[in-house]
Amino acid sequence: YNSFERRKEKLLTISTVAPADALPVCLTSPTVAILGSGDFSRSLALRLVASGVRVVVGSRCVNRIPSGLFPDAVELRNQEGAVSQAVCLVFMAVFPEHYCSLLGLQSALAGKVLVDVSNGAEMNIHGPSNAERLAELFPDSLVVKGFNTVSTWELQTGAHDGSRQVMICSNSTEGKKKVVQLARQMGFHPVDMGGLSAAREIEVAPLRLFPSWSGPVVVTFLLFLFFYGYGFLRGILLPFLAQGGHNAFYRLALDLVNESLPAVALVTLALVYFPGLFAAWLQLWRGTKYQRFPSWLDNWLQRRKQLGLLSFLCAALHGVYSLCLPLRRITLVSLKVPHKSSVSGTEEPWDELGVWRSDLYLSCGVLGLGVLSLLAITSLPTVGNTLNWREFTFVQSGLGYIALTLSIMHTLFFGWDFAFHIEAYPFYMPPSYLLAVVVPCIVLVCRCFLLLPCIFTRLTRIRRGWESKRNCPVLQHHYVVANGIP
Amino acid sequence: YNSFERRKEKLLTISTVAPADALPVCLTSPTVAILGSGDFSRSLALRLVASGVRVVVGSRCVNRIPSGLFPDAVELRNQEGAVSQAVCLVFMAVFPEHYCSLLGLQSALAGKVLVDVSNGAEMNIHGPSNAERLAELFPDSLVVKGFNTVSTWELQTGAHDGSRQVMICSNSTEGKKKVVQLARQMGFHPVDMGGLSAAREIEVAPLRLFPSWSGPVVVTFLLFLFFYGYGFLRGILLPFLAQGGHNAFYRLALDLVNESLPAVALVTLALVYFPGLFAAWLQLWRGTKYQRFPSWLDNWLQRRKQLGLLSFLCAALHGVYSLCLPLRRITLVSLKVPHKSSVSGTEEPWDELGVWRSDLYLSCGVLGLGVLSLLAITSLPTVGNTLNWREFTFVQSGLGYIALTLSIMHTLFFGWDFAFHIEAYPFYMPPSYLLAVVVPCIVLVCRCFLLLPCIFTRLTRIRRGWESKRNCPVLQHHYVVANGIP
Amino acid sequence: YNSFERRKEKLLTISTVAPADALPVCLTSPTVAILGSGDFSRSLALRLVASGVRVVVGSRCVNRIPSGLFPDAVELRNQEGAVSQAVCLVFMAVFPEHYCSLLGLQSALAGKVLVDVSNGAEMNIHGPSNAERLAELFPDSLVVKGFNTVSTWELQTGAHDGSRQVMICSNSTEGKKKVVQLARQMGFHPVDMGGLSAAREIEVAPLRLFPSWSGPVVVTFLLFLFFYGYGFLRGILLPFLAQGGHNAFYRLALDLVNESLPAVALVTLALVYFPGLFAAWLQLWRGTKYQRFPSWLDNWLQRRKQLGLLSFLCAALHGVYSLCLPLRRITLVSLKVPHKSSVSGTEEPWDELGVWRSDLYLSCGVLGLGVLSLLAITSLPTVGNTLNWREFTFVQSGLGYIALTLSIMHTLFFGWDFAFHIEAYPFYMPPSYLLAVVVPCIVLVCRCFLLLPCIFTRLTRIRRGWESKRNCPVLQHHYVVANGIP
Repeated sequence: YNSFERRKEKLLTISTVAPADALPVCLTSPTVAILGSGDFSRSLALRLVASGVRVVVGSRCVNRIPSGLFPDAVELRNQEGAVSQAVCLVFMAVFPEHYCSLLGLQSALAGKVLVDVSNGAEMNIHGPSNAERLAELFPDSLVVKGFNTVSTWELQTGAHDGSRQVMICSNSTEGKKKVVQLARQMGFHPVDMGGLSAAREIEVAPLRLFPSWSGPVVVTFLLFLFFYGYGFLRGILLPFLAQGGHNAFYRLALDLVNESLPAVALVTLALVYFPGLFAAWLQLWRGTKYQRFPSWLDNWLQRRKQLGLLSFLCAALHGVYSLCLPLRRITLVSLKVPHKSSVSGTEEPWDELGVWRSDLYLSCGVLGLGVLSLLAITSLPTVGNTLNWREFTFVQSGLGYIALTLSIMHTLFFGWDFAFHIEAYPFYMPPSYLLAVVVPCIVLVCRCFLLLPCIFTRLTRIRRGWESKRNCPVLQHHYVVANGIP
Repeated sequence: YNSFERRKEKLLTISTVAPADALPVCLTSPTVAILGSGDFSRSLALRLVASGVRVVVGSRCVNRIPSGLFPDAVELRNQEGAVSQAVCLVFMAVFPEHYCSLLGLQSALAGKVLVDVSNGAEMNIHGPSNAERLAELFPDSLVVKGFNTVSTWELQTGAHDGSRQVMICSNSTEGKKKVVQLARQMGFHPVDMGGLSAAREIEVAPLRLFPSWSGPVVVTFLLFLFFYGYGFLRGILLPFLAQGGHNAFYRLALDLVNESLPAVALVTLALVYFPGLFAAWLQLWRGTKYQRFPSWLDNWLQRRKQLGLLSFLCAALHGVYSLCLPLRRITLVSLKVPHKSSVSGTEEPWDELGVWRSDLYLSCGVLGLGVLSLLAITSLPTVGNTLNWREFTFVQSGLGYIALTLSIMHTLFFGWDFAFHIEAYPFYMPPSYLLAVVVPCIVLVCRCFLLLPCIFTRLTRIRRGWESKRNCPVLQHHYVVANGIP
Repeated sequence: YNSFERRKEKLLTISTVAPADALPVCLTSPTVAILGSGDFSRSLALRLVASGVRVVVGSRCVNRIPSGLFPDAVELRNQEGAVSQAVCLVFMAVFPEHYCSLLGLQSALAGKVLVDVSNGAEMNIHGPSNAERLAELFPDSLVVKGFNTVSTWELQTGAHDGSRQVMICSNSTEGKKKVVQLARQMGFHPVDMGGLSAAREIEVAPLRLFPSWSGPVVVTFLLFLFFYGYGFLRGILLPFLAQGGHNAFYRLALDLVNESLPAVALVTLALVYFPGLFAAWLQLWRGTKYQRFPSWLDNWLQRRKQLGLLSFLCAALHGVYSLCLPLRRITLVSLKVPHKSSVSGTEEPWDELGVWRSDLYLSCGVLGLGVLSLLAITSLPTVGNTLNWREFTFVQSGLGYIALTLSIMHTLFFGWDFAFHIEAYPFYMPPSYLLAVVVPCIVLVCRCFLLLPCIFTRLTRIRRGWESKRNCPVLQHHYVVANGIP
């Protein structure tokens, strides 16, 4: 009854009692097996070795593996040999269509943790996920999904960064715990996604292409199309058809783009603040915050950051395009040929009002873009993380409304009094900046209403948990929440 | 005497022996209670469930809670029931003014860890912090302050980021350890702030609004006011009063701002490097580095990054404003009306010196702003984190002085020889760029002095720990340090 | 046989059994000693105390230390006293040249973990590293290298960031584990670099100055020199020599720089995508992906990000310089003096083709720079970390080629049909934009070839692991890999 015997007994005791106590098993003999010898296997082996883990790679044809492919510390064996060496963890780095070929290892893998690292083949597949299929094939093993969201490149180099997250799910708490621990040891940040039914989501995660951006990008693009088409009709096509010869098609490449971009930027920025106002009015009207918003509003609220960044992008492009104007050939031509202006018959006099107008709209534009830049910078993950909630609100809401106000002023100063002249409405079509300024003005006015003392107080109370009488009966609650809309 | 009995005994033994061994208690039965059913409670429950923790929410009126509000895995009980289920951790997600109403749970909460997640009500409150009051009310519980710096939004979404820190303090090492462990499990980065007396600081942290920025922003704003006011007096008001009719007020909106911004940027950039030089001279004069700097110098040294970023902001705005100049109405007017220049009687000849001047000051300006941009980028947390100390010094000190030199050259080339003409001093007031260039030049000269071999060697020796004879007597030391200044 | 006795026995048992079980030793009595009282010692002590560790600082002359230098919680002792208090960890915060003076502590330090925190003196030193020398001097201690990459500033403030990595290496697994654990407790991210032979690399890490940037910067600089020199010869020196008096040297400061920068940006951007194409062709030709690339190609592939950022920098500078053009004195002169253009005898007519040209090349330029900006933003660590592999590929490869195409179009539209006129070739030298566009066009054409279905399919198969017949014989493999080239 020596110390080794006692320790062995202790380990046995622990592993039969509770999963939480089983951690030391892995720690004392961290030999990990990887089945498969592809790129992922190689990178995984490299990273595991660098994290101080003993690695055995199992391949069907060990002799085919070039000698320098794996680090020296890695032992190459056939699949059976590798699995038998692994104490508790086996990575399945083979294509999921070859899972069946491993059925012979079923008994050797029993009781061990199988980590499924495969990606899904397509976005919209029906039927079980790879990990679930694996769990069916090896019912006696503890299948854990994970590591597929990490690329081979990150496996090889990421050790020096360490903030990369690894999504993990499993039906086995014990298996999950071991993989979580290993992921931490490898310098990753494991995120528990729940049971194995979440494997589908984890498997398609690497196939997703900016899921949160698609909506905002489509909206922005449609807005651009609208304003570009509208400007084309109003400024180029209709005048061309009406007057026959006046050809202004050269404006398509730059002028019209630069006319549409600020309109898009302004409307998109307004769309950032619209859902927040809508949510506030909804809470005021319902008299409680304990009812869920309709899902379209929830989605919209979650896309505000993306809309804001797209607005900033358009505004910045508009800025650069505008700064390019003096570089254009057409500018040089019109400046260099004095008889052009004498054709119009007027030697332009000193026009102080015009100077004020240009200076004011340029100033507002520059400052608005500057404030938007600050907003864009704070939406960088690390910068945003250093802000507390009050600072974040100050920047995103306070500075945001300042940017919106400056943008509206930029537009209004640019418009000056031209909107009151009949010439601004050829073919009865108002200029596009006038169309663009409508939604932002509505947003601004609604926001100001919310700041009225009586409404503001009520809203603050609701947000601290107060509920109006109307919402008291409990049964009504259930009905409301279940339906999503009152 | 079966294995379960043995394990139970082991646990009991451990928890009576030392706090460090008590960790397994939490691991084996991680049921956590949350008192209160507000927003924070809901988000906390969501996050805890997602981290694999069993959660019981205790509410005074369980029936009032809408069914869909909490995730299904969360058990809703009355307060007594929730507390009795919690093995060691209870979150107090109720408003601090309602702490008294929980006094009836005193005995049920005895021996358990109470996590106070409340925020302070105001910045400058006297009296004990919420956590200290809680500790007084429940003397038999282990009160830990924490999680209040995390917003509900971060609780719900932050799992996918994980770099968010959670400040924690407590007088109980055992309690702190459990909360630290739980915070890690939830994907946060716990930071130990010490004993419960630090709770006040943690409680007001979410109320702070850019505490490190207020000083630099005020300085920059005052500088802007000074240069704007000075330029207004010198260029607009006094000429207007002196000559009666000459109205240049249109310059207020853009010209004058664009004249003040570079001056502010230049002085602010000099202020970034001033305290470092001052500290070096102080060390040279004292002959030791083991004396504390006066606190104003310490504060100044800690605000250099903010000053630098504000300087960059002003410089960037100046750049954009300058690029806007050709877009202005006044530029177009003055270019399009040739008789304006013929009024002055001179057909402007080819002026090679003028061309060199404009090209040189534009080049220096662009390059200076470019270098400042690099500095601004490296001040982003993640970019800065990837630099080692030598690289950081190279960028912040080396590139910084290059930016300063380029900015000074930009100003001097802009000034050219105009400063030597009497016309540059109307009303005996020098142009503002001349005022702005004084401090930067002093900083640059002082810096060059520090690079003289004799001084540089001495400074290096002092910074490696050498001390001059003067500083040897030990008693004198104490006197000096205690007073802060020699 | 009371509980304390049993616990003591348990600890003894564990520490004699396996290093992995020895962790509790440190946890229960975390007193850590620091030898030396310099800056690093002080900052380390501060951080350790803030992390809840008891610290004893050992100094040769305790009386010389000013009272306020260390936090109150730190105990100051002489060296022997400090070491005797430390249970398992001793930091060596003395200059490595003084290691010998500590030989008297050899027996006191036996069995303890010595953490060597020293930096290397120079980059290219031969002989053992500081940590290896320390291990020779104290053969009975467990020497661990680490913490030298952390600056004193980060030690004092970094607790609030926590993403900073600490590289650690040691021949003792036990020692390494304790230091890793301590580093985590201090809020750092420990990275295991392997055995003590890695100490040299860790020691010179803080001396490195942007090792991954030197190559790309040199290449970019040489390209700039080439284009600048070429432009100087072609546009200024040769015309000056040929025509005697025509002095265009004023173009040196801005014009010529602005002519060279876009050429450099374009070539550098092409160099980003060149190695990837070369690697693809190599894989196609070899018929396998299991052969290593030659090391120059590997290096080149690893420097793509830096090349891309430098390309962006040049492009951005070119943009700003171009926007500055209308601000230049020479522009104003040429615009204001109408007789200049009448000298050339032509009143410039409306030139619609010229307007299209200028608008198109400006548009392409702005959009190309915009796409490059997006690329630059995603190369920020945290932004890149939030992308999955498909998104990363989409941005870096998809958007990258779009940027390259836009840049080439920008150049071609700028060139228009001038390249077909004999005047564009003074002294038989083509304009520099024509030189610059060659490599990018080759890259684009090669890339298009790779998209041909037959080649694309083969490449995809190879990248999924397929190998051509030619590569089957195993022995040939070894030969090929050993030589690096086939």
